[in-house]
Amino acid sequence: MPVLTLTTDFGTQDGYVGAMKGTILSICPEVTLVDITHDISPQSVIQAAWCVARSVPQFPAGSIHTVVVDPGVGSSRNALLVQADSHWLVGPDNGVFSLLLERMPASKIIRIFSETEYWKAHASFDGLALFSPVAAHIAKGLAIEEIGEVVDDCEHLTFPQPQHNKEEIVGEILLFDRFGNAVTNIQDEQLRTWSEDMIRVQYQGMELLLNSHYQAGAEASAFALVNSDGLLELSVFRGSMQEAFRGKVGEPVIVRGGA
Amino acid sequence: MPVLTLTTDFGTQDGYVGAMKGTILSICPEVTLVDITHDISPQSVIQAAWCVARSVPQFPAGSIHTVVVDPGVGSSRNALLVQADSHWLVGPDNGVFSLLLERMPASKIIRIFSETEYWKAHASFDGLALFSPVAAHIAKGLAIEEIGEVVDDCEHLTFPQPQHNKEEIVGEILLFDRFGNAVTNIQDEQLRTWSEDMIRVQYQGMELLLNSHYQAGAEASAFALVNSDGLLELSVFRGSMQEAFRGKVGEPVIVRGGA
Amino acid sequence: MPVLTLTTDFGTQDGYVGAMKGTILSICPEVTLVDITHDISPQSVIQAAWCVARSVPQFPAGSIHTVVVDPGVGSSRNALLVQADSHWLVGPDNGVFSLLLERMPASKIIRIFSETEYWKAHASFDGLALFSPVAAHIAKGLAIEEIGEVVDDCEHLTFPQPQHNKEEIVGEILLFDRFGNAVTNIQDEQLRTWSEDMIRVQYQGMELLLNSHYQAGAEASAFALVNSDGLLELSVFRGSMQEAFRGKVGEPVIVRGGA
Repeated sequence: MPVLTLTTDFGTQDGYVGAMKGTILSICPEVTLVDITHDISPQSVIQAAWCVARSVPQFPAGSIHTVVVDPGVGSSRNALLVQADSHWLVGPDNGVFSLLLERMPASKIIRIFSETEYWKAHASFDGLALFSPVAAHIAKGLAIEEIGEVVDDCEHLTFPQPQHNKEEIVGEILLFDRFGNAVTNIQDEQLRTWSEDMIRVQYQGMELLLNSHYQAGAEASAFALVNSDGLLELSVFRGSMQEAFRGKVGEPVIVRGGA
Repeated sequence: MPVLTLTTDFGTQDGYVGAMKGTILSICPEVTLVDITHDISPQSVIQAAWCVARSVPQFPAGSIHTVVVDPGVGSSRNALLVQADSHWLVGPDNGVFSLLLERMPASKIIRIFSETEYWKAHASFDGLALFSPVAAHIAKGLAIEEIGEVVDDCEHLTFPQPQHNKEEIVGEILLFDRFGNAVTNIQDEQLRTWSEDMIRVQYQGMELLLNSHYQAGAEASAFALVNSDGLLELSVFRGSMQEAFRGKVGEPVIVRGGA
Repeated sequence: MPVLTLTTDFGTQDGYVGAMKGTILSICPEVTLVDITHDISPQSVIQAAWCVARSVPQFPAGSIHTVVVDPGVGSSRNALLVQADSHWLVGPDNGVFSLLLERMPASKIIRIFSETEYWKAHASFDGLALFSPVAAHIAKGLAIEEIGEVVDDCEHLTFPQPQHNKEEIVGEILLFDRFGNAVTNIQDEQLRTWSEDMIRVQYQGMELLLNSHYQAGAEASAFALVNSDGLLELSVFRGSMQEAFRGKVGEPVIVRGGA
C-alpha cells in the first residue's frame, strides 16, 4: 500500500485536485493518498521546491510524490519521473525537484513519453491527464520502460548565494513563511566559523540578536534564529517580520562575527 | 473499502469538518476519506456544483460523495441521496448535483427521511447530524428503504445559455477560478462550426487570440483557450484576468468565426 | 489501524505539515491520517481549543489527536500526552486541550520526557521532532512509561463568563467563525430559564430575534440562534455579522427574558 503525496498550486475549490484524486484512486485504489499542499502560490516553482525539499525526505521509502506547479503546462517543457533514495518524484521539468535533489541525489531521471496508452500528455491540464496517471501506474508497478526514457539531467533552480568572507556574510531574504518569518540564504554551517555570542545580524539598519528559539525577547521585537532547515531566519516575537518591517524577498541580511 | 469524499464550504478551522470526519469514521472505520474541498465560497451552490461535476466522474465506481453547501439548512428544503453511474451522492436538494447529473444521469433519486433511528435531521447543522451519518451508513450497506423514499426529480441550477447564430456566439463569464481565469458558458462544440484560425474572441473591447495552451503570448497579455471542461476560458499570461481587467461574473464574451 | 488526526496553525504551503505526515507514516505506516485543520489563525490557542473540542468527541475510541498550535515552542512549556475517554491527545501544555477536557475529562495526564531515544524535544520545531513521533509511537503501542511521567494537571484556558441574574444575561463575543457568525459565551441552559418567545437579544443597540435556524428573516437582517455547540450565536441572513456590523471579539451581548 504505497504512499502517494500531492503538492499543487491548484487550491481545492475548482475541483481539479478532486479530479486528480479520483483518477489516482480509479487506477490504484490501494494507494494511501496524502495531501502535502494545494496552497502553493500560483505558479511559484520556488515555493513548491522548498515545500517538497522539506516534506519528501520524511516519508517512508517507496513513496511516490506528485508535484504539479507548472507554469509551462502545454509548452514544450518535459515531464519527469525521478527516482531518488527509493522515492519516486513525478512532475514537470522546471526545477521544482532541484532543492530536494541537492539533499537526496537522483539515482535515475526519466523523461516521460508524451503519448502512451496510459495517458495523453500536453492536454491543457497535465495534472489530470499525465501526472496523476503516471503516479498511479508507478504505484501499481508499471515498468519504467513503458513510461519514458532515461535522460542525464533535469532543470535546476538557481538561488542567490551569500557573499562570504572572514568578517561577514552578506545574504538575502529568499521567502517568507506563513508566519511572516523571513527565511534567508545564509546557512548554519556558515555561521559556525564564529562563536555564537559574537554573532550580530543586521537587517534594515537594525542589529538583531541570534536567539535559540522563537519564544524570546519583548513583544514585537525582532530577532534572528537558525530554523529547522539550518537557514538563518528573521522573526518578530508574536508578530510578522513581513508585515512589521514591510520585508521583501531579496533584501540584504548581513551577519558579522568578529569583535 | 469504499471511497467517501467530502465537499463543503465550512473551511476547516472551526472544527465542523473534523466533527464530520469523526462521525463518519465512528460509523464506518473502513471507509477511505478523501477531501475534495472545504474552501467553496460560503454558500456558493454554483461553485460547488462545478467542483463536484469536475471531480466525481474521475472516482471509482461505488464511491460516495458528501456535499454540504447548504444555504437552506434548517429550512424545509429536502435532503437527497442520488445514485448516478454507480456513484452515491448525499447532500441538500438545492441544485448542487445538477451539473454533475447532466454528465452522469441519475438512476435513482431518494428523498432522505427527516427523522430515523440513524440520524436526526433539521438540527442547526445537518452536515454533522444528517449528511455524514447517511453517507457512512451507505458505505456500510444500509438498505435505501431505511434512508428515504424514491422521488421523481430534484432541484436544478439554471445557468445563462449563450445566444448563438451563424455569425457569432454571445456568452458570458460564469465564474473565476483560483488563477483568476474567467470561465465562460461557451462550449467547445459551439466553436467547432468554425475553423480554429478564423475564431476571434471579444471581451471588454479587446480582441483575444484563441490559444491551444496557457504558456503563450507576451507577459501579461490576455488570450482565450478551451479549458479541460470544454468551456471557453479567458486567461492572462502569468497574471489574473480577474485582477488585470477587473473581470466580473456575467460580463459578455463574444465569439465570431466568420471573415 | 488507529486514526491519527492533525490540527495545526502551520498552513500547508511551507511543507512542515507534509514533513509531519511523512514522519508519522515512516514510524507507523498503518495509521489512518486525518487532517482536522492546518488553518488555525497563527498562534491562536483559543481557536484551536474550540476546533479540538468540536472535532475530537466525534472520533472513534482509540484515536490519537496531535495538536500543534504552540506559541511557546522552544521555551520551557511542557509537552503533554493526555488520555481522555479512550482518546489520546498530544500537544503543548498551553490550554489547547482545556475546552475538550471540560466535555471529556482526562483520565491520565503525562508530561512528555524532553529527550529520549525516540525523539529530541525543544528543537526549533517540536511539531516535527517531538509531537509527530510521540503520536506515531503511541499508535504503535509504545508504553507510556517510555514517553513521560504522570502529572496532576495541565494548563487551562480561562474564558470570560457571562454575568447572569434573573432579568438578564450579559455575555460577550468569543470569536467569529468562517461565515462571520459571532459566537458568544452565553449557553443554551442559561437561556432555558425563560420561555423562548420572551427572549430578546441586544447587540450594538439592535434587538435581535431568536430564530431556530439560519434560513430566516429578510436579506441582510441580523438574528440570534443557538448553535450546534449550545452557544448563543449572532448571524446575518446571507451575510457576515463580522463584516456587516464590524463585530469585534469582546463586544457585549445582552439577553433579556422578562416582559
